[in-house]
Amino acid sequence: MPVATVTIRVATADDAALILRFIRELAIYEKAESSVQTDEAGIRASLFGADAKAHALICEAGGEAIGYAVYFYNYSTWLGRNGIYLEDLYVSPQQRGSGAGKALLQHIARIAVAEGCGRFEWSVLDWNEPAIRFYEAAGAKPQSEWTVYRMEGDALREFAAG
Amino acid sequence: MPVATVTIRVATADDAALILRFIRELAIYEKAESSVQTDEAGIRASLFGADAKAHALICEAGGEAIGYAVYFYNYSTWLGRNGIYLEDLYVSPQQRGSGAGKALLQHIARIAVAEGCGRFEWSVLDWNEPAIRFYEAAGAKPQSEWTVYRMEGDALREFAAG
Repeated sequence: MPVATVTIRVATADDAALILRFIRELAIYEKAESSVQTDEAGIRASLFGADAKAHALICEAGGEAIGYAVYFYNYSTWLGRNGIYLEDLYVSPQQRGSGAGKALLQHIARIAVAEGCGRFEWSVLDWNEPAIRFYEAAGAKPQSEWTVYRMEGDALREFAAG
Repeated sequence: MPVATVTIRVATADDAALILRFIRELAIYEKAESSVQTDEAGIRASLFGADAKAHALICEAGGEAIGYAVYFYNYSTWLGRNGIYLEDLYVSPQQRGSGAGKALLQHIARIAVAEGCGRFEWSVLDWNEPAIRFYEAAGAKPQSEWTVYRMEGDALREFAAG
């Protein structure tokens, strides 16, 4: 099929509803729809407000938004350098294979290189084999010896108060 | 034994050499000493310079520095909220069991709660059973279904350039 040129732009607060729709679509794909506990106002405030730590990109083709990415800066003491962590990467199902996912990933890799970041990282669900193939083909390596631990909700409040 | 009161303070650029020493001690414990690819100037610039994204704490007892922590802010699209990611937590071997590690973890948990963060997260090496017991007792849960992928070095530069 003829592929429309994929363009990537920085998201603005006017994209909050669009980003929330994409977040929900990605959560459904990840079998975690009920995990989305925010709304349009929450996305607008957290991604575009004064305390925002993350950055959002919108991917477009033929004048239509077809995907998004959200990333933030992390840090490695071993390298003594900042890095980039990709929180979300999503392309609408009907647009997969168009190169949009790679274009988004490459766009952020270029930001990482331009800003002297040491690493570009993200997390993948272990059963998401298409994503794993895509990431390994791009040159990413699994950090299989590490497990993320998370404290949240009541457990976080109780530990903080204890 | 009588335990000196543990105090926690925000690190400053004058702590760069101390932090680097602790980073190296932690890397030796993690069987990754050669992974430390920075020096005192690198730590000073990356943790205390204009582009710093991470924050460092020093833990003291009896007037002596006995441990440190480095953290940064991450972000969850599912929650529409910032979180805190703990990059490093370390207490000198001779000071373990003094409550210093818990004091550091709790100090950061309180920052997370005070700032409305949704999650407090960190990574653990799968063989580090004392750490895993400590974290699970504190109420943290392993995110076992996710694996971190990393692009770095030549692979990152080549993917960005491609």
